Amino acid sequence: MTNFKIPAANKQLKIITRGIVHLEVKSELKKKLEKSHKEQKPLTIKAGFDPTAPDLHIGHAVLLTKMRQFQDLGHRVVFLIGDFTAKIGDPTGKSTTRPALTDEEIVENAATYQRQVYKILDPEKTVIQFNSEWLSGMKFDDVIRLSAKYSVARMIEREDFKIRLSQGKPISMHELLYPLAQGYDSVAIKADVELGGSDQLFNLLVGRDLMGRFNLAPQCILTMPLLEGLEAREDNGKIVGDKMSKSLNNYVGLEEEASIQFGKLMSICDPLMWRYYDLLSLKSNSDIAKLKKGHPKEAKVALAKEIVARFHSETDANKAEKKFNSLFGAQGKNVVPKDAKEYVFAAQKGSEVALLNALVKAKLASSNSEAKRLLKQGAIVVNGNRVNDLSYKLKKGSYEIRAGKKRWAKITIE
Amino acid sequence: MTNFKIPAANKQLKIITRGIVHLEVKSELKKKLEKSHKEQKPLTIKAGFDPTAPDLHIGHAVLLTKMRQFQDLGHRVVFLIGDFTAKIGDPTGKSTTRPALTDEEIVENAATYQRQVYKILDPEKTVIQFNSEWLSGMKFDDVIRLSAKYSVARMIEREDFKIRLSQGKPISMHELLYPLAQGYDSVAIKADVELGGSDQLFNLLVGRDLMGRFNLAPQCILTMPLLEGLEAREDNGKIVGDKMSKSLNNYVGLEEEASIQFGKLMSICDPLMWRYYDLLSLKSNSDIAKLKKGHPKEAKVALAKEIVARFHSETDANKAEKKFNSLFGAQGKNVVPKDAKEYVFAAQKGSEVALLNALVKAKLASSNSEAKRLLKQGAIVVNGNRVNDLSYKLKKGSYEIRAGKKRWAKITIE
Repeated sequence: MTNFKIPAANKQLKIITRGIVHLEVKSELKKKLEKSHKEQKPLTIKAGFDPTAPDLHIGHAVLLTKMRQFQDLGHRVVFLIGDFTAKIGDPTGKSTTRPALTDEEIVENAATYQRQVYKILDPEKTVIQFNSEWLSGMKFDDVIRLSAKYSVARMIEREDFKIRLSQGKPISMHELLYPLAQGYDSVAIKADVELGGSDQLFNLLVGRDLMGRFNLAPQCILTMPLLEGLEAREDNGKIVGDKMSKSLNNYVGLEEEASIQFGKLMSICDPLMWRYYDLLSLKSNSDIAKLKKGHPKEAKVALAKEIVARFHSETDANKAEKKFNSLFGAQGKNVVPKDAKEYVFAAQKGSEVALLNALVKAKLASSNSEAKRLLKQGAIVVNGNRVNDLSYKLKKGSYEIRAGKKRWAKITIE
Repeated sequence: MTNFKIPAANKQLKIITRGIVHLEVKSELKKKLEKSHKEQKPLTIKAGFDPTAPDLHIGHAVLLTKMRQFQDLGHRVVFLIGDFTAKIGDPTGKSTTRPALTDEEIVENAATYQRQVYKILDPEKTVIQFNSEWLSGMKFDDVIRLSAKYSVARMIEREDFKIRLSQGKPISMHELLYPLAQGYDSVAIKADVELGGSDQLFNLLVGRDLMGRFNLAPQCILTMPLLEGLEAREDNGKIVGDKMSKSLNNYVGLEEEASIQFGKLMSICDPLMWRYYDLLSLKSNSDIAKLKKGHPKEAKVALAKEIVARFHSETDANKAEKKFNSLFGAQGKNVVPKDAKEYVFAAQKGSEVALLNALVKAKLASSNSEAKRLLKQGAIVVNGNRVNDLSYKLKKGSYEIRAGKKRWAKITIE
């Protein structure tokens, strides 16, 4: 990297804007990139993280991948941990999901973060900062001076505030202070660009406004989409489906086993695969274009290997591929037989059918207790993924299910 | 005062509620008074003052008189100086009338306050406190915890906020913090009762709410009217007219000369006099009732003497009365002659006529420069008040004007 140079603005822009939802403001960003190229001086890229949820999945990796792209272009990334508000928790005492964290917990969570994110980020170009560094020392009069730089009307235009106000749902005064605190982070670190999820756009704009009020060059803003979960599919040219989340069990965890990650990624549909390429791959645009000309199966294997290699190693990725092929390869026992019976079940309350019930109804198990046993033994494979969760639910859609080595059924939930 | 006892609640209530605009909540206040009577333990009465305007007039004395009544009933008054926000000034830099005050200026203003208010308050039952004592030490996280105790919806219901929001006029975020800061003062001093002008009701209610959220017995609230200026009159049983203010020149300053105070007070109409009795006199309700049975002129003299004596001395009050009588007494030279000429002038732009012009037009002076000389010499008396302000304006109304010892004119401005 000694001879590395920050490339020309246009080249950077092509990579930077891949997969983004919103860019504020393109012409400004281009100027910053041009200056940075001319002077060979890296930009400061900010992205904020909440220290309360350090167990990450590849949904979180979307933002981290964009950060890494900036690093590969020669820029400096500030991984900003919002410990200040985390230490306060929910001062109204209403939310049980926002307990106040101790310094020890935050340090521990930050360490977990580092272990995970350095699989994606380049440690040498990453600065980890905690916003308590500048926020916890602020006094009431500083807060008043900060608040004076932003208008109430603008703050309550934020979509969720507007809705809650119009519905008569309470907003506590302190909730208006959080966007200001986050925005002030941009002032403190003099961010050139801030990255965030598309749901964070308002807060990022507050930071941009405040920087102007503090006579700093306002940060540009790039927002990334929230990644769709593994079961998303294409509808009318658009990817539709739930966002990736632990609670919906439609995720790939950054610290899951290599073979699990590989298998989960191989299960996604082709259109979703291309979306994952845009958002998660560090391959160049032209490399992706080449893959599109080949067989989708090969592209999917390449994506799964790239991601597994990132979070584990090349060796682990190769092993995972081999294992997957031995289980599900074309020559193996994992192609659904043409004569497999087909069943159509009506979704029940909650638009789901319990897998346990489906196994019995589709005669893959003779009884509920046999179905449980099969699941516990790891003998049930749903759409290529081994399932051993007794409470697993099948949503609306089509499934190829294998019980043991040979018994197959095609099940459609309507 | 050694044998003084805090009287029974009902007796106190009669005095306390005289002249008030609003009481929140009567039953609670009665309970507090009963407890205080039973235990012979004084209540803590809070009233907040802005340290930016220490040049007081009797409009300010309305609140101070109510505070004194509480003291005379045995209670303890906290004279709270809001220096915390005064030191910040207007952080948006838009208002030139709210400069940031230095510590020295605030100390100086506080001294001016003391000199003036101890003419009304009992120093032994007055505690002067500065709210920077507890507010300036608060950190950002304290502010967040405080803000969490109040809802946005409730805050923006404040009349002036509501109007400005609906008209699209900007409100800076910090303006929402000021009522919380003021309200927290009540928490800090554990106020039993807060007194304030009727325009302060919202802020006082914030204090009451916050005390509840801090698990303190919420303060009761008494608001006093804004005092009408000297030119107010009765219309359909109600006192109508501008509020007393320096800029409208319809005031009696606490530090004006005794004879000026006396003369100004003698110039008010009878209905306004009874209002001033309610709001400014320390006489008992029954004493005022007795005065109402006598001649209004006597009552007015008694009021003027009470007020002058309070801000100067009994001797000064007697001297002022004598001087007034010698100038305007029935037997003296101060009754307008029946044959005085009458003039009617049209009010000009601003609904006023300059006294200088009126003197020349009414032939009380032969020229503008003679009129100026007469004013400078103190030879001009308008409705019984000596005027030496060259820029004095006559508003719509009727005037009896004397120039020198004998020349009179009646002037009406339409």
